[in-house]
Amino acid sequence: MKNPNYEAWMLTVGNELLIGRIVNTNASQLGKMLTLMGFKVSRVIVVPDDIDEIVEEVRRAIGRVRLLVTTGGLGPTYDDLTLEAIAKALNRELKVNPEAEAMIREFYSRRGMPITRERLKMAFMPEGARALRNPRGAAPGCIVEEGGTIIVSLPGVPEEMEVMFKSEAFKILEGVSPKVSIVECSLVIKGVPESTIAPAIESTARKYPEIYVKSHPVGFELGAPVIDVRVLASDSDRESAEATALEALAYVKREAVKLGGYADEAYCG
Amino acid sequence: MKNPNYEAWMLTVGNELLIGRIVNTNASQLGKMLTLMGFKVSRVIVVPDDIDEIVEEVRRAIGRVRLLVTTGGLGPTYDDLTLEAIAKALNRELKVNPEAEAMIREFYSRRGMPITRERLKMAFMPEGARALRNPRGAAPGCIVEEGGTIIVSLPGVPEEMEVMFKSEAFKILEGVSPKVSIVECSLVIKGVPESTIAPAIESTARKYPEIYVKSHPVGFELGAPVIDVRVLASDSDRESAEATALEALAYVKREAVKLGGYADEAYCG
Repeated sequence: MKNPNYEAWMLTVGNELLIGRIVNTNASQLGKMLTLMGFKVSRVIVVPDDIDEIVEEVRRAIGRVRLLVTTGGLGPTYDDLTLEAIAKALNRELKVNPEAEAMIREFYSRRGMPITRERLKMAFMPEGARALRNPRGAAPGCIVEEGGTIIVSLPGVPEEMEVMFKSEAFKILEGVSPKVSIVECSLVIKGVPESTIAPAIESTARKYPEIYVKSHPVGFELGAPVIDVRVLASDSDRESAEATALEALAYVKREAVKLGGYADEAYCG
Repeated sequence: MKNPNYEAWMLTVGNELLIGRIVNTNASQLGKMLTLMGFKVSRVIVVPDDIDEIVEEVRRAIGRVRLLVTTGGLGPTYDDLTLEAIAKALNRELKVNPEAEAMIREFYSRRGMPITRERLKMAFMPEGARALRNPRGAAPGCIVEEGGTIIVSLPGVPEEMEVMFKSEAFKILEGVSPKVSIVECSLVIKGVPESTIAPAIESTARKYPEIYVKSHPVGFELGAPVIDVRVLASDSDRESAEATALEALAYVKREAVKLGGYADEAYCG
């Protein structure tokens, strides 16, 4: 899973995320979708609505990760700066993208509304970019490549982000994502505290370096601690991924029993 | 608000945040608390449970921002690496912190449980650090300073994070935070689309550079768009901050009326 060609970063833009007015559900939604596609998500970065701060992070990503997905900052207001910042980071001109302009004109003409300077602003994209249709709003998305890094820019409104990802970005990214199946399996252990089971989790991770294993305390039953051990495994097909995950959890279960605990059957979601 | 001495970054550690298994509520909770204390939060960074990735981001923060708050990675398992990474980033030794050790021994002896290698691991902190008491769990927090940057490390469990921040970190940070009051005021505008009001929002931001103004579309009433315009203002006292925010919103209201919309009274939360 350490292949840097499949590494992905997310850059979510917006002061309202930094001051805690809203929770970053876009990051978790995208994290889930990108992971399932086989990308290894190794950073989520939240930046203010500030050109220089956005430019700094975009430049860090270029040539380092295969995919950078940005959310937010595509709208008509003065503080929607994402595409201007990407153009600057790429040293490309920011100019009207004809595809994007057509999408915006269609959106407003259907509603009987004129094109203003602010509305046309949403058609300005880095030179060489492709516009992504927004089925739920006015602001088109954008995709552009530089130094081996694909930069996909999606809207910040969660519903628009999700629909645009699934209807537009997914098709394009499928062509570059690894061909893997990812499976998550879970084992619930009772009667052993997390700090007691920790060495077994550690040795599982060492024994199966290709998986991701993590324990989560979920509470107590009749005074005994309950731990949920989860394993993520990926492979070229689902059956092989599941087999690896279940083998790792069988090992965890044997260790838990040795420590005086007991466990239900593992299951894969 | 651009004073770099009051800039704060958050570093939240954990693969489960990157793969979208959990939503980063710690970042929004902390963002709110730090903003109310007068810090300018300019980055949230989520990193995997990986020493080198954590070290890279800690080093970026040192000497650049006044405050770095980390969450997660303080527990007993092999992938809890935050304090080891901070020690490495600071080129300091990672060694048993006697305060932390006493807290951990007390926690387990009260529960009649022995000290194991995994439990003692939670007492290892960078040399020169202070331990922060965890009223809700086993893992102590940690505070250490380097190059003018205060690094506060809190647990990843949201309840433990919040209690430790309020009971331990807040007192210490009050001594370094700016002496400001922050006020948020809101104005609901009806009958003007967001892209039509955008130029007025932009000119408000230009006219009142010390505030933060943002419009949020909240839906439709009887077919007319409803926009929530929010202003954050900070000043040495609450009255002055509120006066600035209300003056800015009165300006927005006049512009909205000119554009054919109407608005309720502004209110401050």
